[in-house]
Amino acid sequence: MPVPASETIEAQGHLIDSGYLSAIMDKVIELNSNYEIVRFDIGRTNDEVSSLEMRLTAPSDAVLADLLQELTVFGCHAVRESDAITRPAEKDRCVADDFYSTTNHRTHVRLGAQWVEVQHQRMDAVIVVAGNKAECRKLRDVRAGEMVVCGHDGIRVTPEFRERDRLGFAFMSNDVSSERRVEASVVRIAAMMREVKRNGGRIAVVAGPVVVHTGGAEHFSSLIRGGYVDVVLAGNALAVHDIEYALSGTSLGIDLTAGAPVEQGHRNHMVAINAVNRAGSIRRAVEVGVLRSGVMYECVKHDVEYVLAGSIRDDGPLPDTLMDLVEAQDRYAEALDKNVHLVLMLSSMLHSIGVGNMLPSWVRVVCVDINPAVVTKLSDRGSMQTVGVVTDVGLFLHHLAMRLSAQ
Amino acid sequence: MPVPASETIEAQGHLIDSGYLSAIMDKVIELNSNYEIVRFDIGRTNDEVSSLEMRLTAPSDAVLADLLQELTVFGCHAVRESDAITRPAEKDRCVADDFYSTTNHRTHVRLGAQWVEVQHQRMDAVIVVAGNKAECRKLRDVRAGEMVVCGHDGIRVTPEFRERDRLGFAFMSNDVSSERRVEASVVRIAAMMREVKRNGGRIAVVAGPVVVHTGGAEHFSSLIRGGYVDVVLAGNALAVHDIEYALSGTSLGIDLTAGAPVEQGHRNHMVAINAVNRAGSIRRAVEVGVLRSGVMYECVKHDVEYVLAGSIRDDGPLPDTLMDLVEAQDRYAEALDKNVHLVLMLSSMLHSIGVGNMLPSWVRVVCVDINPAVVTKLSDRGSMQTVGVVTDVGLFLHHLAMRLSAQ
Amino acid sequence: MPVPASETIEAQGHLIDSGYLSAIMDKVIELNSNYEIVRFDIGRTNDEVSSLEMRLTAPSDAVLADLLQELTVFGCHAVRESDAITRPAEKDRCVADDFYSTTNHRTHVRLGAQWVEVQHQRMDAVIVVAGNKAECRKLRDVRAGEMVVCGHDGIRVTPEFRERDRLGFAFMSNDVSSERRVEASVVRIAAMMREVKRNGGRIAVVAGPVVVHTGGAEHFSSLIRGGYVDVVLAGNALAVHDIEYALSGTSLGIDLTAGAPVEQGHRNHMVAINAVNRAGSIRRAVEVGVLRSGVMYECVKHDVEYVLAGSIRDDGPLPDTLMDLVEAQDRYAEALDKNVHLVLMLSSMLHSIGVGNMLPSWVRVVCVDINPAVVTKLSDRGSMQTVGVVTDVGLFLHHLAMRLSAQ
Amino acid sequence: MPVPASETIEAQGHLIDSGYLSAIMDKVIELNSNYEIVRFDIGRTNDEVSSLEMRLTAPSDAVLADLLQELTVFGCHAVRESDAITRPAEKDRCVADDFYSTTNHRTHVRLGAQWVEVQHQRMDAVIVVAGNKAECRKLRDVRAGEMVVCGHDGIRVTPEFRERDRLGFAFMSNDVSSERRVEASVVRIAAMMREVKRNGGRIAVVAGPVVVHTGGAEHFSSLIRGGYVDVVLAGNALAVHDIEYALSGTSLGIDLTAGAPVEQGHRNHMVAINAVNRAGSIRRAVEVGVLRSGVMYECVKHDVEYVLAGSIRDDGPLPDTLMDLVEAQDRYAEALDKNVHLVLMLSSMLHSIGVGNMLPSWVRVVCVDINPAVVTKLSDRGSMQTVGVVTDVGLFLHHLAMRLSAQ
Repeated sequence: MPVPASETIEAQGHLIDSGYLSAIMDKVIELNSNYEIVRFDIGRTNDEVSSLEMRLTAPSDAVLADLLQELTVFGCHAVRESDAITRPAEKDRCVADDFYSTTNHRTHVRLGAQWVEVQHQRMDAVIVVAGNKAECRKLRDVRAGEMVVCGHDGIRVTPEFRERDRLGFAFMSNDVSSERRVEASVVRIAAMMREVKRNGGRIAVVAGPVVVHTGGAEHFSSLIRGGYVDVVLAGNALAVHDIEYALSGTSLGIDLTAGAPVEQGHRNHMVAINAVNRAGSIRRAVEVGVLRSGVMYECVKHDVEYVLAGSIRDDGPLPDTLMDLVEAQDRYAEALDKNVHLVLMLSSMLHSIGVGNMLPSWVRVVCVDINPAVVTKLSDRGSMQTVGVVTDVGLFLHHLAMRLSAQ
Repeated sequence: MPVPASETIEAQGHLIDSGYLSAIMDKVIELNSNYEIVRFDIGRTNDEVSSLEMRLTAPSDAVLADLLQELTVFGCHAVRESDAITRPAEKDRCVADDFYSTTNHRTHVRLGAQWVEVQHQRMDAVIVVAGNKAECRKLRDVRAGEMVVCGHDGIRVTPEFRERDRLGFAFMSNDVSSERRVEASVVRIAAMMREVKRNGGRIAVVAGPVVVHTGGAEHFSSLIRGGYVDVVLAGNALAVHDIEYALSGTSLGIDLTAGAPVEQGHRNHMVAINAVNRAGSIRRAVEVGVLRSGVMYECVKHDVEYVLAGSIRDDGPLPDTLMDLVEAQDRYAEALDKNVHLVLMLSSMLHSIGVGNMLPSWVRVVCVDINPAVVTKLSDRGSMQTVGVVTDVGLFLHHLAMRLSAQ
Repeated sequence: MPVPASETIEAQGHLIDSGYLSAIMDKVIELNSNYEIVRFDIGRTNDEVSSLEMRLTAPSDAVLADLLQELTVFGCHAVRESDAITRPAEKDRCVADDFYSTTNHRTHVRLGAQWVEVQHQRMDAVIVVAGNKAECRKLRDVRAGEMVVCGHDGIRVTPEFRERDRLGFAFMSNDVSSERRVEASVVRIAAMMREVKRNGGRIAVVAGPVVVHTGGAEHFSSLIRGGYVDVVLAGNALAVHDIEYALSGTSLGIDLTAGAPVEQGHRNHMVAINAVNRAGSIRRAVEVGVLRSGVMYECVKHDVEYVLAGSIRDDGPLPDTLMDLVEAQDRYAEALDKNVHLVLMLSSMLHSIGVGNMLPSWVRVVCVDINPAVVTKLSDRGSMQTVGVVTDVGLFLHHLAMRLSAQ
Repeated sequence: MPVPASETIEAQGHLIDSGYLSAIMDKVIELNSNYEIVRFDIGRTNDEVSSLEMRLTAPSDAVLADLLQELTVFGCHAVRESDAITRPAEKDRCVADDFYSTTNHRTHVRLGAQWVEVQHQRMDAVIVVAGNKAECRKLRDVRAGEMVVCGHDGIRVTPEFRERDRLGFAFMSNDVSSERRVEASVVRIAAMMREVKRNGGRIAVVAGPVVVHTGGAEHFSSLIRGGYVDVVLAGNALAVHDIEYALSGTSLGIDLTAGAPVEQGHRNHMVAINAVNRAGSIRRAVEVGVLRSGVMYECVKHDVEYVLAGSIRDDGPLPDTLMDLVEAQDRYAEALDKNVHLVLMLSSMLHSIGVGNMLPSWVRVVCVDINPAVVTKLSDRGSMQTVGVVTDVGLFLHHLAMRLSAQ
């Protein structure tokens, strides 16, 4: 019969504003455990952080272990310090059952009595330790014998706290609704983009074909020409539709200055793919003069990196599209790892979730979609870091481009 | 035991392009009846109409009667001519069971061997005959003893046919999707509005408070100043939010240049109502200088008629709001009856359905909403006459106002 | 030039779990003011409440007054006690500019050094004082000379705190998503309904016509027969569609065991209205045997109160429908005031918002709609009291009726 | 300067009911061309087909060629017979610019004066001819020198016509709305599934993880046990969530009998992947007794083929997931090619579009999603063959399983 188990934990930070103190308590109760506040020093003013010491009592050692691991995400750690426990992976892609599953927050592990920052932070990974180094690794990339952090000892997570006074970001992110004035959001997003560039950061744009369907291609192109886009992460469809539009003036067979969809066929779509196939690649299509405008054209012309990931629904695909998804994920992750400070996610739930999974929590995300459910879903995965805007993405890009090209 | 019954009907018009020929056949089969095409002369070119003669056989007289009545909407009528049958209303608001229920299409009834056009055409009404006059009447307005058209004899409906060559309208109306380039729709809608004004027609705008929340109030105001709005049909909420914005710069407590919603209270909202109550009416609030901007202000300044209908959710209401819905419906209907050629429906399903119920089928409707289900629902009620645009209504108004003020 | 102004406030309760402490801080910063925590005693265990004392400094007296009023919703009040300030209404429907705008939380005002509970609590009202009594009053019902509470002195609000351990409710209410297992929600809602009835409380159901379209009428009827419905608050459309279905087997002209919508006409709909008009009322239609099944039939048979509010989109309306919306709002409010503990809102945004506006915060609300945006919108208006379920309302009612009839 | 060009075409079939005659006329006008009806014999009764002969005049040869190709989808072909034109692919993946782009309808090409049926019909492919055989080929699979059909000569498409009397299917497919009684649809879909099995056809199910989140896994399992599922086409996520649920009782960290989502972590999710990795494959996990219930378990136990396609958002992935999307597409297509008569698409837009692209038009499709926009999008791609149901997919599966297990 299990006997109750206890541990004293501590945490520091903007515990109130972030809602973390409340979340900690919820989690304790949810796991049928109890807490007693040993000490809580609240920040007296807006600038001061709070500090918490709390005694947990769980119904069993196993539950306590679960609880402690789950509380790491809020910055909680045992008062009692000890090194992280590591166990060798029993085979490729397979680790011990009590492996520590990472969050997207900055994490340190204690190795040989030293706190070491984990590299390549991302969520749903494990931490592999080698010597005095530690890094996030996807399960599939773990090799037999590698040392993997297990349990909850010696792990400290430093969550990003929602900062109350950074109104530009914090206040926008509170809710998702189509009943908002988009122009106000555009002003703030433009300011954020300028600030990122001023600070030497990079901006990634994740975009779906709806950007083209809604007439956003020319405005997206204008952002690229203005130097506001450093990397484009998309699928085959964005590129095909963009090139179809550049070659034929249509998107999915719809004339963008007019009309109706065409159920039967997407010949222009196929023509675009054929044309790129003939040239050999998108870059070559630009070089030989076949492709003369559009998002992909501007990427080539302005040396903007792009990664096109394949999917089960792809026509073609274009020769540039990576149909090996392991490679595509790796290429996405590498591109994001190169000092990307801000990601704009435009009407592509699939690629946006993919990117969201790869990002550490300190990269800002702006998510734009006309479907509030998509924005909610993306925001829920990282509510502290994500601003959601529910609007028409074509018109949004139009206004953003106007704002950024103004002065 | 019922015996089969037959009748020969005819119809004329763009029966193919409108999809009516197909719909006629569907309806016959749906009512377990059969048809035989006696004659079908197809228009040889795009300009010529088609002409149909069809023999129907139904399983019983009752079904045949139903079928004939249901087919009137497609312009079908018995070859054999006879006067309309009328029966006196047995009491106020109550008519004989076989009453003819109107469509929104132009309708003639045969009285004393003369075809007479029915006045005040609208759907879901009955036709009351007095002397050689006939008019649509809502059930609630029928008085005991009035003569009401029953059955299907002597009734001819002339449906509006979707005209193939009027691309500006017809081609836009085919589908509802958020994946469209709104700028293309704006160009056409602006052209349509100019044409209506040039021809001396009036334009009605049905608008919900989302117009204000999304920042559309100033652009809507610009349309009014430009002379593109002749009547505003709305609810209490549009006016309250518009006035709240004019007085406080907020909409539902949200600062439109910034931030977050405020769950607890809508004090600014109440302040706006209180201010109008103090003045006595919206018009008085303008006259005494309390209200100096916004949609309602412009309506007063430019003598644009407005009708505000109350609802169960209303705060206040403003003194101008009609809380007697019978009166509100009558005032809406009167306003629409005065030569309105075009109705713009902006983010208000409730009032849009209300207006849609009152309109004859030859009034054009443009329906704008960010929720595709709303646009679909409104379009389904009159697909021939309605153009649907799925987009952010604030940005839509911005672009429409820019387009209309250009040149 | 304004000079800074200060005040010390206090609050007590589950300030952490409810998120109120964080919200208080946000509000202070939002109004360009500062706070200093004088004292914060955190509840040491889950059962203990927290207690806060905080010194506020605002840039001016006016801002301080606003801030204090806005903070009342979180249970904050000045440490310094004083009587509420009242001012006479200057005319009917019009009060002094600094009137106190109510929340839906339990409120006390201090009159003659006594704290008095405000009656008929609802939001967006003012508080009228007469002798040692105080009650919420809608602006439109205020008469010249009545004494109205102004400012923020002598007002104490006791918010409902989200209670952490009442998992059945609290944990359901955290998010709105269509990606949930509805059966789990049904189990809890059924338990909640049984508990309400066991405790002698009443259950109100707000329902739109979609209940009928989706096949929910028979299951709703079963809830009524089971004694789980005490009052039905709806519009004309619910009753008309329900009666249409009872008389003709169709809903909006759609055969519920089969097929397609019928654009042109809603004859069965009109027939239903005509039939009730002939009988004189819904009750009479039941008594004379014209109406023999459905939601309205069961209401009459089981003496369930129903209030049908008119709207601008109504056909008919039925003789029972209240087309005077002032009367309809009053009748809704009265019905809710009679010991209603739980409100089920089924697919009717309009009536649900109307009801939500009338409810004090201690009445539980369950909101069911297939559109997540509707559920979010209703939940946002009272997130502590509302459980949202995104699902097909017809199937939901089927499962709820099965669950409640089991055992 | 281009000179006008003419051609006479003919078509046969249910041209009215299918709306094709109208669509043909629209297309001619859209391409700035004219038509003259030479002959139109309308089917006199419901069973007879119509027959059309029409003379087209286009502004140039090029436009005429386009027009003729676009009209093939409606079954139109030149009266004048000639062999199909073929041209060699100039290089791998690249064909002549006037290549014929396929539809999903049954197609014949004329080779050596013989009409030959094209194999592996699918849309957005080209037709490769070898000897007297012809087959659809995706562009990426075309090899240099292969003979590809170009232009529009010698091509005959036989569209599936919506059959008026097959009410079970045709009448359901007319509209997409959440306001329908799902139980009626379930009855028909169950009947369709039984009929397919009776006729020896196979049923494929495309499913997303929402099936698991909404509690549908056990009901889906019941369909498999009942023999109603022959192949499952899904992504990594369905399998991971299903296995997570089988192992831990949660889906995405949500306890399906209770509660709230957990932002930080999806440890159970990772545990499921780790467990399958340890076993080596899903099948092995079943064999060694690690996996004992759920959709994947039943697939293994009942030898139901499954293909899991990778995507950019995948965690893991499971060893069974195909991360090479070319292979995944080929495996999907092969599975569908094996006598699949019916496809059920459940809450997975990505995989459903992928499958839709591969299907010939004579395979029936039922698409179920709670988001009407998804159902509309999928239906628009093949409106004749697709029935859309807007509802909660978990409850839908519950009802479908009940219906199918009932006698």
